[in-house]
Order: sequence, then C-alpha cells, then structure tokens
Amino acid sequence: MTMQTLNAKMANAIRFLSADAVQKAKSGHPGMPLGMADVATVLFTRFLKFDASAPRWADRDRFVLSAGHGSMLLYSLGYLLGYSDITLDEVKNFRQLNARTAGHPEYGHVSLAETTTGPLGQGITNAVGFALAEKMLAARYGKAAVDHFTYVIAGDGCLMEGISQEAIAMAGHWKLNKLIVLWDDNSICIDGDVALATSEDQHARFRAAGWNTLAVDGHDQDAVAAAIETARSSDKPTMIACKTVIGFGAPTLAGTEKTHGAPLGDTELAGMRDKLGWPHAPFEIPEDVLSAWRAAGARGAAARAEWDARVAALPADVKAAFDAALSGALPQGWDAGLTALKEKAIAEKTKVATRKASQMALEVIVPALPTIVGGSADLTHSNLTVTKDMKSVLPDAMGGNYIHYGVREHGMASVMNGLALHGGFIPYGGTFLVFTDYARPAIRMAALMGIRTIYVMTHDSIGLGEDGPTHQPVEHVASLRAMPNLLVFRPADVVETAECWQISLENATGPSLLALSRQNLPCLRDDASVNLSAKGAYVLSETDGARDVTLLASGSEVEIAVKARDLLAARGVKAAVVSMPCWELFDAQPVAYRKAVLGDAPRVAVEALSTFGWDRYTGLDGAVIGMTGFGASAPAEKLYELFGITADAVAAKAEELVKA
Amino acid sequence: MTMQTLNAKMANAIRFLSADAVQKAKSGHPGMPLGMADVATVLFTRFLKFDASAPRWADRDRFVLSAGHGSMLLYSLGYLLGYSDITLDEVKNFRQLNARTAGHPEYGHVSLAETTTGPLGQGITNAVGFALAEKMLAARYGKAAVDHFTYVIAGDGCLMEGISQEAIAMAGHWKLNKLIVLWDDNSICIDGDVALATSEDQHARFRAAGWNTLAVDGHDQDAVAAAIETARSSDKPTMIACKTVIGFGAPTLAGTEKTHGAPLGDTELAGMRDKLGWPHAPFEIPEDVLSAWRAAGARGAAARAEWDARVAALPADVKAAFDAALSGALPQGWDAGLTALKEKAIAEKTKVATRKASQMALEVIVPALPTIVGGSADLTHSNLTVTKDMKSVLPDAMGGNYIHYGVREHGMASVMNGLALHGGFIPYGGTFLVFTDYARPAIRMAALMGIRTIYVMTHDSIGLGEDGPTHQPVEHVASLRAMPNLLVFRPADVVETAECWQISLENATGPSLLALSRQNLPCLRDDASVNLSAKGAYVLSETDGARDVTLLASGSEVEIAVKARDLLAARGVKAAVVSMPCWELFDAQPVAYRKAVLGDAPRVAVEALSTFGWDRYTGLDGAVIGMTGFGASAPAEKLYELFGITADAVAAKAEELVKA
Repeated sequence: MTMQTLNAKMANAIRFLSADAVQKAKSGHPGMPLGMADVATVLFTRFLKFDASAPRWADRDRFVLSAGHGSMLLYSLGYLLGYSDITLDEVKNFRQLNARTAGHPEYGHVSLAETTTGPLGQGITNAVGFALAEKMLAARYGKAAVDHFTYVIAGDGCLMEGISQEAIAMAGHWKLNKLIVLWDDNSICIDGDVALATSEDQHARFRAAGWNTLAVDGHDQDAVAAAIETARSSDKPTMIACKTVIGFGAPTLAGTEKTHGAPLGDTELAGMRDKLGWPHAPFEIPEDVLSAWRAAGARGAAARAEWDARVAALPADVKAAFDAALSGALPQGWDAGLTALKEKAIAEKTKVATRKASQMALEVIVPALPTIVGGSADLTHSNLTVTKDMKSVLPDAMGGNYIHYGVREHGMASVMNGLALHGGFIPYGGTFLVFTDYARPAIRMAALMGIRTIYVMTHDSIGLGEDGPTHQPVEHVASLRAMPNLLVFRPADVVETAECWQISLENATGPSLLALSRQNLPCLRDDASVNLSAKGAYVLSETDGARDVTLLASGSEVEIAVKARDLLAARGVKAAVVSMPCWELFDAQPVAYRKAVLGDAPRVAVEALSTFGWDRYTGLDGAVIGMTGFGASAPAEKLYELFGITADAVAAKAEELVKA
Repeated sequence: MTMQTLNAKMANAIRFLSADAVQKAKSGHPGMPLGMADVATVLFTRFLKFDASAPRWADRDRFVLSAGHGSMLLYSLGYLLGYSDITLDEVKNFRQLNARTAGHPEYGHVSLAETTTGPLGQGITNAVGFALAEKMLAARYGKAAVDHFTYVIAGDGCLMEGISQEAIAMAGHWKLNKLIVLWDDNSICIDGDVALATSEDQHARFRAAGWNTLAVDGHDQDAVAAAIETARSSDKPTMIACKTVIGFGAPTLAGTEKTHGAPLGDTELAGMRDKLGWPHAPFEIPEDVLSAWRAAGARGAAARAEWDARVAALPADVKAAFDAALSGALPQGWDAGLTALKEKAIAEKTKVATRKASQMALEVIVPALPTIVGGSADLTHSNLTVTKDMKSVLPDAMGGNYIHYGVREHGMASVMNGLALHGGFIPYGGTFLVFTDYARPAIRMAALMGIRTIYVMTHDSIGLGEDGPTHQPVEHVASLRAMPNLLVFRPADVVETAECWQISLENATGPSLLALSRQNLPCLRDDASVNLSAKGAYVLSETDGARDVTLLASGSEVEIAVKARDLLAARGVKAAVVSMPCWELFDAQPVAYRKAVLGDAPRVAVEALSTFGWDRYTGLDGAVIGMTGFGASAPAEKLYELFGITADAVAAKAEELVKA
C-alpha cells in the first residue's frame, strides 16, 4: 500500500464514521465531514501540534470547527486519534441523551471542542480571540512558553455572517499571522447554490482586511499540505480556500445541499462504500488505518516534553507568573483595593455615576490582576473602561492590556470568549447597554459554556437622556435576566458597584454583566463590611416595627425608593427599602432569607426599565413602576417625570396598596 | 458673490445651525455635520430628487443618515430646505422633550427621516432594502412609476459593524446600482484615530462585494458632484469615500474625536465664526443663503409633476395595482383562503408542525397578497417559508417575491425594515428562533418605528431535539415578550397558526413574530368562527362547574396541558385549559375578560421555554413548569422527559396546588 493510499483511507475513515453515525442517529450533518475529510486528515496528521493523551496541554495548537454542524468530523477525529473521551461507543451514541457527542461540539463535553460552535460565525471569531491570546501571552511570557497556531474550519455560512467580517477585520488589524482559516469552499448553502445569495470574491475580501489568501483543491492532500506550509510562514493571517465537494463520495447526492443536514440513507451509504472502496461495516476501521491515526494522535508527545522542559527552565518569576495566569485563580489579597475604595466612598459619601464607580473599581483591580484585559467597542471614554495605567493592545504592541475593539460589539464579545477559553486572561469589555443586542449571540455562548467574561454595559436606562430611544435600554435587562447562567448586576452606588465587580471576578463558571448608570448616584450604603450584593438582594433600610410596605428597586432607582420611603414616613407609612442588584443570586438564596427580605407587606417595585419579570417579586397584588414602552429624547430628569418614575409616584402607589 | 462662495456659505449654514443647536441643547454630536456639510450641500442642492412641499412623494430619492448621531445635519437641511415639519423653533429645541428634533433621527418625527438611525449599521442596511424595493417595484410596475436613487451617509462606525458587511454583500449581489454610499472618511472614531481599531482597505472590501468605489476630497464640492455623477451612471452600487475633517472649521478641535459627541463650547464656536467668516448670530441665516436653500427645496416640484403625469398615464390595471401596493391596505377578501384552511384543518384533524401550518397558511396568503415578499436566512426548507408559486428574487430577476438572504439574519431583518419603510411591500423572513439573537437590533428598530415586518421563527423550543442547546431557544420568547410594540405569537395548532398569520398581516403599526414548532402538533380547536388568538389568550377547554385549577400554556405545550387535564379529570380534579398564543394582545384586553380567562382557581403554566415572566399570570401561589437552564442534545421526546415538561408533571403540580 502506498502512503497516498493510506492517506486516502485515513480520510475515508472520517467519512464513514461520520456518515454512519449520522445514519444511526437518524439526524445530523454528513455533508461537511465528507467534504473536508481530506483537509482534516492533512491538518491533524501533518501539522496540528497536540497530544491526544494530554488534551489540555497549554501550548497545543488550537483547532476550531467553526462550521459546528459538521460535529461528526470532530468526533471521528477524536476517536481515530485516540482521545480517551471519544470512544467508539460515544461515536455510536451521536446526538443521544447523555452522550458527549452532542449535535454540535460542546465545550466541556469533549476535549477536542476548544469552544462550543454551531451558531455560525462564533467559532471563527473565538479563534481570533485564541490567536490574539497567543500573541499577547507570547509578548508577556516569551515564545519559549507560548508559541502555537490556531486553525479554523469555516464554511460559507460562517463567512456570510456579519460577525465574521468583524473577526476578519480584527485579525488583519492585529496581524495574527498564526491564525489559519481553512474555508470549506463547496459552493453550496442550505437553500442550494451559494450563488443564490452571494457573489462575493472572498479572496479579495480577506485581502482587503490584511490577510493572505491561498486556494487549493481540498481533495488533493499534498496541495493542502503545501498551502498550510506556506500559511505557517506568513506575516499575516491566512485564509486557504479549499475547493471541495460537499458530501464527497455519496454517489448521487454529492455536490448538493441534500447532503448537508440529513442522513444519506442506507442505499446512498451502500453506494458510497462501493464508490470509495470501503468494504467495512459501520464503525469498523481497518487496523492499518486505525494505527496510522493513533500514531498521529501520539506524535505530539515529544513536542510536549520539549515544551515542559522549556517552561521548567523559565526564570522563576516568569514561570510563576505564567503558571498563575494559566491557573485562572485570583491572587491572594487581590481585593484589598476594593475594600479601601468602599470604605472611602462611605466616608466621603461619594456621589458618582456607577460607570464612574466602575472605573474607580478598575483603578484598583487592574494593578492587582495581571491577567485582566479590558476593552470597549469604541466607547472607551463613555464606558469608562480604561484606567490610567492600562496600555493599548496594538498590532505591534501586544504587551498591552486594553483592546480597542472598534465598533464591533458582537466581535468583541466573541473575541472575549476566545480570550477566556484560551486561558491566561480575564477579559472585560464595554459598550452601551442597549447594544448588548448586537452582542447577544456571543454573550449566550459564554453563558452556555460557563466561562468568565465580564460585560461593562453603561448608560443603562432612560437616564442616558438626550440620545433618545435608540440608545435607551428598556427591555434589555429583562431579556438578559431571562438568559440562563448569566449574572446580571445593576448596582446602586459605589459600594454596590465594587461589590458586583468582586463577585463578577470571582464568578469563574459563567459570564457577568454590569448595567451601569450614566447619571450620578449618591452613596446609599453606610457599611461595607459584608458584600451584601452577593446575596442578590438585601434590606437596605428596614422599618422600625412591622413594615406597611416594601419598596424594591435596583440601580439608579434605589435612590428613588429611598426618597419615596422618606415621603411615606412623613405620611405615617412605614416602608422598607430592598436593593436588588442581582436577581439570579437572590433567587439562589434559601427560602427563609428571600422571605425575610421581601417581607409580608405589599410590595412596590421601581426600575426605569421594562416592568417585565418583576411580578416574580411583587406578586399580583403588588405594583411595578417602570417602562411599558420605548423611551424618548430629552434630558434625563424630564424623562423620569414623563414616564412617572419618581419618588412621588412610588409613594402614591405604595399608599394606595397600604390602604387597599 | 461668486457661485462658489454661495455654495460654501450654504455648507456653513449647516455647520452653524448644527453646532449652535448642539451648544444650546448642551448635548449632541457636532463633528459629523461640520465634516459632511459640503457633501450634504452638493447632494441636496444638485442631485437629490425630492420636493420639500411633498415629503412623502413616492418616487423621491431616499436619503439615509446611517451615521444617525449626526442628526443635526438632517435637521439643519430640513429647516434650510423648507420642510414644514422642521421649523427654526424645532432646531432650537433640539433634543428637548416633545421636540421633533430628537437626539437621533426618528422615523415619524420628521419627514426627512426615512428611517430611524443611530444604532450603527442599521441605516446602511435599511438603505439596501430601499434600493432593493425600488428595483423590485420597477420590475413590477415599470420605470415610469418607480425610478429613484437611494443615498446613504455612513461613517467609520457603520462600516465596522458586522451588519454592514452583510448589507454590502447583499447590495453587490443584487447589483443595486442606484444605491450610493457616501462614506464620511474622517479617520476618527470615538476612541481616537481609527487606526487604533482598524486597518482595512475599505475600497478593496466594497469592490470584493461587487461595488464601484470612488474617492474625493469631501470639502471640494465640485469634486463631490463629479463623483456622484459618475456613481449615478454605474451598473453597480457605488461607495464614494469622502475624505473629510471631522469638526471642520472648529479652530482647535477639528480633526479630533473631541468634536464627535459633545458641544464645542462658546470659545470654540466663536473661533469657528472667525475662521469660517460667519458673523451671524446663532440660528440666524443670511437671506441670500436661505433663499438659495429654499430654492433647492423647491426644485423637485417639476419632476414630481412629471411623475404624477406618468403615473396617471399608466395602464389602468398597472396603476390600480401600483396604488394598492403603495397604500399598504390588504385587498378585500384576502383572508378567504385562511378561513377555508382553518375549516379544513378542523374537519380533517390535521396534525402538523406549526412551521408546516405556517407554510399551509402562506400557500393561501401569498396568492391573495401581491405585496408580500418572503425569504429566509438560508433555512428555506427548514423554516418552510417558501410556497409553490413563489419566485426567487435574483440579481437579474427582480420580479420575484422570495428572497434568499443568505446566512445573514441581522441583514435580513434590517433589509426587511427597508422594504417595509419604502412602501409597496409586506416583508416576512425566517430563521430558527434561537437566531433572533442575531437579528435583535433590527427587530427592535421595527418595533420602535412601528412598521409591519413579520418574522417566521421556527424550531421554537427543546422540541427541535438533536441539534442541542446551541440551537434550542430557551430565553428567546421571554426576551422578545419584553420588547415593546412587538407581537410575539406562539400558536398551538393549524387553526391558531392561521389566526396568528391573519393578525400579523393586519397589524400595520408594528412587527409580529411567529414562534413555530419543528414537531407535529394535533389540531386542538373545533371551531374557527372567531379569531380567538386575537384576544391573546382564551379558554380552550372549560370545566363543567367551578374550576379546581387552570392550566396555562402556549404553542406545543397546549397539547401537554390538554393531556394533563385528562389525567386530572381521571383523578377527579377539574382543570380548565387556557391557550395563550400572544401575551401582548391578552394584556390589552379589558380586565373583566382577563379575569374570566384566568379564573380564580390556582394556576399552573407550562411552556418548554424559560419560565421567566410567567409569574404575571400564575401569581406567586401558582406554578410554572418550563426551562430554568439550557437544553441538551437528544431526541425531542427524551428532552421533554429530562426536563420534566410532561402532562404527568403538570398534573402532579396541579394536584399539589389544589390540595394545598
């Protein structure tokens, strides 16, 4: 058997494992694994630096299957290469309950999934984050410690998504020359021929953003190898257009959209066995082919040993810093500055916008956390996301810790996911809260993967004033509270802002979002000895004796609730004030705590946002004062009046309930 | 005075009105109006086809200020050109409560705002919709009726957004040669020099997508005119890079990001008066300059008269169809097919997925509504958005009524906004419900503007099964219900699906979204004489005598509620079943109706989605059965079991409440 034949068989092993698993599951996407099997074979057997026996080796090359529907490509590779978390049984259980081999590759399910993919465009943008992380880590700790490539397989669908343009623009700008995108150029999309929907010259498009591009026959393994070799020595990121046939080998369906998202069927599969000369039963891989694959899976062991030695030989301080960065742990005593900030704010009754409070928190957090990386989608001086000591990350200055993402909210959030997934960084990024909508698919991916990213979302209500309804969030906080595994914070003053930053940084199993005011807010807390925000909600101001009413509020409206309490007191009505900076954390408290905080008296909630969702705390007998429509353009105080979100209105509603 | 000088003064009139209004408002964005004043002067005085006395003239050229923060440019133009809805008082009241001159241009506030802009990238994509609408209408009714250009002013921010790439790709693909984008190429973004965040060659990028590009000095009015002249005769869309100085004329701040989003200040303004030779007081426009502008505002009257004559001379049937299309009204009896569909479904107990039911509805709607235009973001055969008679809209076949948007959910929704705003079309478009996240900023714009767009969002729960959590919506319906002015429908069977389509089409003051199942659902209704979905919720199945419990459900879970009712009946518990296809419509019903539907008995809600928001109907004493985390990859029925969303679980919870 010639080497060429063995290589072809190795690719066919991917094809049949993939097509047979889809057939057995009666569900899945065979077209892409069949089309890209040759490219994947070349990449994994000749180039990718990895060790199947140590999947999380820190300096491994990253591989991202951006076209996540082709998940069986990844699972086939995992089994063939000898990854212990993808057994043949797992392959046979593709898409079944409790299998690791989920419909789309899921981070944490199989070690080969560096990130969860499926929603198109996310993978390629995460990969920009991986490649950026690599370059930034290398700048900090040296090439001896960090020196790897990031490879992506992306389809036409990925490249049509707007987020991919943001990713391509950023990668070109940052000169991420160790990022290599293998485009599955098969001319087919789900509706049919890609020409139905696009006429772009992808080569010209990538080149316009500062990339190299190459084109090869994606079924000519040596040509693919030569292209990857060229790409690896480039000073720019490289896109390799791999011309392939979707569903390669399927006798009647190859080259059509019919192979994309449905099992091929028994007849077509039998014909494919004939056509490709593969007499083996489903899930049966001939010994020579499996050995060759297993050898490929083990070939990185030497490189890993060399890396171990290099890292062991690093100067002690560099090694310690590098290990600490990779661990993700927060250094001992990192929060001392926050404690001091809170005490000072209480002593000085500091009145600032919570976006400013956030910047004050960052001024003490950033020096204490070397792994933190900030940024903004071109609203740095509005979001107040930068501190005096931060240095910009720029194409030729990768040692910085502040990223100018440009007006690319979606790309920012997805690159942040890549930075967090890579290891070595805790990313935060800012924009206006209203523009979380632009970033929402990537925020969801962070929540689904359970990774630590922090969103600094300012101008969080009609309180932003004159910019008007296009810029005033109304439904955004509710819509984010509805998202699983995302902590949504809306702090009321400097103390709560510092508390929420602390919780966000300590929350290593999911993203956190801070909704911050544009307008100044008084310091409401007089004690910061306990992080009360960590309970999600707490009694800011209790009544003397039984409550007549409980006022619930978050963020900028806690001040209004406090004023309403005073108005009510003058009328002989006893009102407690509950600050609720984080619903998710409150809902996780024991019933007894929640009952004690909410009390038995009628409840009035106030928030200058959509009232949607508040019934959970007010019940049907309570009241919610907030927004039921869009905002308007005018100075903030006029808008609070216009929409009736005032201490007077809260007091009047509370009195009405008390008297009812 | 030479002509040149007058032109320069006309541009300066824009500059001073804009800068003085921002100064008076103590808020706003002077940089862009100052930078683009020359370009705008050329466009509005020499090219744009419009008539200030008839702002809604159907064949006017469309002008979109995609960089919506430069709203004072538009308001200055409006006043100078003599639009009656922008008086000098309105200019002086910029950004104040109840002024038409909102912080960002708002559709419906001033006639010059063809669309609401501000969230970057939306305007340029709406403009693609305008230009597409023009081409499609011309194909249907002839160039005598429809023949206009669409002009856009876009900044660096717009072009960095991913959605702009989707827009550029679509415009190039469709060869929208009457679309002309004037790029305010000022090299400044909010963080500072655009080089902080981008290194793209914009010319190459546009050309890669099939555009022409030109470059001019944006302060040389004759050069700008020559470029626009060239662009107008192109067979491709054209991008003209207008090299400008942001804040042109500001003596110390011009060319810096400091002019972008804050008043210049009195000193800078005084210096600008010196520098530009403008001795006039704020809001004072010299008579010669104002007359020249007013003449420009009136110069389109002749063209409009000619158009009137051409349309009057159209063949009667063409004219009637054209007038009907522009009116937006639904033809008499258009819904007869829906009535027949409902009756047939009841008679035959049709069991289909609601996505299929939607296609069955479209089969009878499309032939009855010539203005409907369908499409999908490359999921046509999954969304079932196409009907047998529809024809694809393709670059050289603009007479069709089905658009292949490609994998561009955001671009699709924003182009749909453009189609709806232009007039002549009712657009609908499909993708998976989970990907509403990608389109959310554009859906919000439709809701804010109150325009008729219809989203066909299929695979609406864990019921999609094997594709897993990346593709399973959980929080999406809640997050959409939180959005003002959007009707969110989740029909339970064929009858409700037909009813919801009818309401969506008749809802001319806002967008509607249909959340539809992948899986088959039985026909639950036995009477379709009244559109019960129009009340938002209704009693599908009442008890004989007083209710012990009320079961609330929407969509695919109504079937589960009905089964739970039967289980409960066997145990002697009387349960009513309420179907709630649309919360927004239910909330708009009179209190008495709502009380009667919800009843006094304990309530259990069931929905295979986030439980977020249901407390509004169940109260704190009721129960909600649904999702509290992300889904998983497995066959649908296994997932319903796994997450406990079953008739057994509903019945058990109901019994528990009844016995409590």
